[in-house]
Amino acid sequence: MQSTRELKAVEVPRGLAGVVVTDTELGDVRGQEGFYHYRQYSAVELAEKRTFEDVWSLMLEGALPDAEGRADFVARTTPLRHTPQEVAALLPDLAKAMKEGSVFDGLRVVLPLIGAADGFEPLYDTPPEQRVQDALTISAVVPTLLATLYRLRQGLAPVEPRDDLSYAANYLYMLSGEVPDEARARAIEQYLISTIDHGFNASTFTARVIASTGADLASAVVGALGALSGPLHGGAPSRALDTLDAIGSPENADAWIRERVLAGDRIMGFGHPVYRTEDPRSRMLRGIAESFGGPLVDFAVEVERKIVDILAELKPGRQLHTNVEYYAGVVMELAGLPRAMFTPTFAAARVVGWSANIVEQAADSKIIRPAARYVGPPPPQPVPAL
Amino acid sequence: MQSTRELKAVEVPRGLAGVVVTDTELGDVRGQEGFYHYRQYSAVELAEKRTFEDVWSLMLEGALPDAEGRADFVARTTPLRHTPQEVAALLPDLAKAMKEGSVFDGLRVVLPLIGAADGFEPLYDTPPEQRVQDALTISAVVPTLLATLYRLRQGLAPVEPRDDLSYAANYLYMLSGEVPDEARARAIEQYLISTIDHGFNASTFTARVIASTGADLASAVVGALGALSGPLHGGAPSRALDTLDAIGSPENADAWIRERVLAGDRIMGFGHPVYRTEDPRSRMLRGIAESFGGPLVDFAVEVERKIVDILAELKPGRQLHTNVEYYAGVVMELAGLPRAMFTPTFAAARVVGWSANIVEQAADSKIIRPAARYVGPPPPQPVPAL
Repeated sequence: MQSTRELKAVEVPRGLAGVVVTDTELGDVRGQEGFYHYRQYSAVELAEKRTFEDVWSLMLEGALPDAEGRADFVARTTPLRHTPQEVAALLPDLAKAMKEGSVFDGLRVVLPLIGAADGFEPLYDTPPEQRVQDALTISAVVPTLLATLYRLRQGLAPVEPRDDLSYAANYLYMLSGEVPDEARARAIEQYLISTIDHGFNASTFTARVIASTGADLASAVVGALGALSGPLHGGAPSRALDTLDAIGSPENADAWIRERVLAGDRIMGFGHPVYRTEDPRSRMLRGIAESFGGPLVDFAVEVERKIVDILAELKPGRQLHTNVEYYAGVVMELAGLPRAMFTPTFAAARVVGWSANIVEQAADSKIIRPAARYVGPPPPQPVPAL
Repeated sequence: MQSTRELKAVEVPRGLAGVVVTDTELGDVRGQEGFYHYRQYSAVELAEKRTFEDVWSLMLEGALPDAEGRADFVARTTPLRHTPQEVAALLPDLAKAMKEGSVFDGLRVVLPLIGAADGFEPLYDTPPEQRVQDALTISAVVPTLLATLYRLRQGLAPVEPRDDLSYAANYLYMLSGEVPDEARARAIEQYLISTIDHGFNASTFTARVIASTGADLASAVVGALGALSGPLHGGAPSRALDTLDAIGSPENADAWIRERVLAGDRIMGFGHPVYRTEDPRSRMLRGIAESFGGPLVDFAVEVERKIVDILAELKPGRQLHTNVEYYAGVVMELAGLPRAMFTPTFAAARVVGWSANIVEQAADSKIIRPAARYVGPPPPQPVPAL
């Protein structure tokens, strides 16, 4: 434990569980009520009524825009979609050096170069308005970087962003080269809105710790992406779809699930550290999936019902429901996203939330710097010469 | 605040100051005593009596090696100095895309590619011995990456590592293309040993938060580099040397310092959040500097004395002494390191400490995930349609 004159060791729960590390005006998750919000507005209601750009503006600039504000925000952010020339030139070689299929890793490599190309300075030395501008810059270019890296990995030529499409539609367009139909674009847009932010998870916390040192915005986002890549973090919608694939058909569900639960395995797509009710994101995404319909949706709904019933039987009182991953995977599949892009797509939305958290943290001059307790044998032990 | 059934909000000091987030066997800083250690051994004594490789082995493998263990460790780590071919091929273009002089930024970009090339898997899925192996891999290649990026930025051809040189001597050799004399190599080696680890600073904490998600080792190191880049973190020895340059000559010192202190400016190279005595690293590095001698050393010693006296007069009771940055800058200058490489060199040593912390954290299955308190107006606010 680092002892300074004014500090005494403060004992807290493991993993800092429940420890209030900061105040925030960005939002809140109410696990008991199955409710979360962004700046007072139900995130699900935002997804139902608003565009991604509206909610992005709410998170970064503090208020939901009116029609004029929306047009202004779109006009300001659309030009930021284009990859700076010096970074674009590197992407083909980077795509080759990336691990198989790892567009997510590629994004982490490229973002510091975006920061360099766009002249990001340490947040500590950046005025508040410019911090917001840096946040818009990085959030706007992420879909382009993801789509470019994906296509390069597939041996396809990158598709330039189109300024006449929404954030969501343009993202699907850059991936496939085809303008998506309205229903698919809107499904992805609603998914993206619903995953911009979700309380104080480990990646958001990482972003804020790095921001608290005064580092530049790209550094904090890259750190958050690293945390998000951890298997304990959550945020891998493809895993829930893998569960559906593994079950294969409804009649296998019962045996498959009982075997997993009795073996003590986690069932991907079920359970959440905060919600004690159905995950509100899951409910919304199921509704979107059902509006598409089809065999995958029917299967997913049937498997969900069976798994919830079996979990209630085998783990009574645990309140295990589907989490955001379960129907997120289904919705992304229906919208035509390749499975390798599920987690990167989640990350694209989360970049907006992280950058709002980073901007908020940068207004606080106090570095986040806890302590450790030394538990080894007592020093000093003389160093034997060699 | 994220409320879960079992958690109540835990109130702690701002910035988590003094909050014990983990147990560690790696070391400890005793601010009141002016003492810090690595696994029981005084870090300064280690720097005086041992090689960098010995202390690296101590941190990662848990014990100081004997002669045989040293030879074995060197034989295992020397081959890891070489940059994987697919990463080396990218470096010329990356060096061009980096911000002017920013070898440090370049390192952050390259490390995920090293992880990909060397097949790093998430720590969560990696057996303990392989975690240590990944840590050795990344720590061994960092000096090569730094030297290569530096030389490419200078328009010079990279210099391949030499297996017959020590970590420290080889680093200087790869930077300049010339084998350094014994005194310079040893000075840098002692500096590197003394900065491997130093308590629970913001970058070490960042590394551990990312590791706690089960992400791969490169992700955690990259996050730590991001935190280290923050102006509030410390670790920029060039700034202290800039202070000496700004003062220019001993007779200017008094007026220059009083003006800064009265304006409320921080004097770079002085003061530390933990030490209430002289920084033990500073004392050791001054000794190394004095063994070289010369006008820069005389000037630095004279300015130090004046600044300490003036700070004692203007800020009585504050105990402001030189910190590690002050004489680190002098020692690196004497050893012939270019000033742009001061912070990257510090980072190279710290990669060893971070990776030891990451390996230790990976043995703990609990994610580090604190909470935030929502302080905005109460939800829900109906979403106005548009």
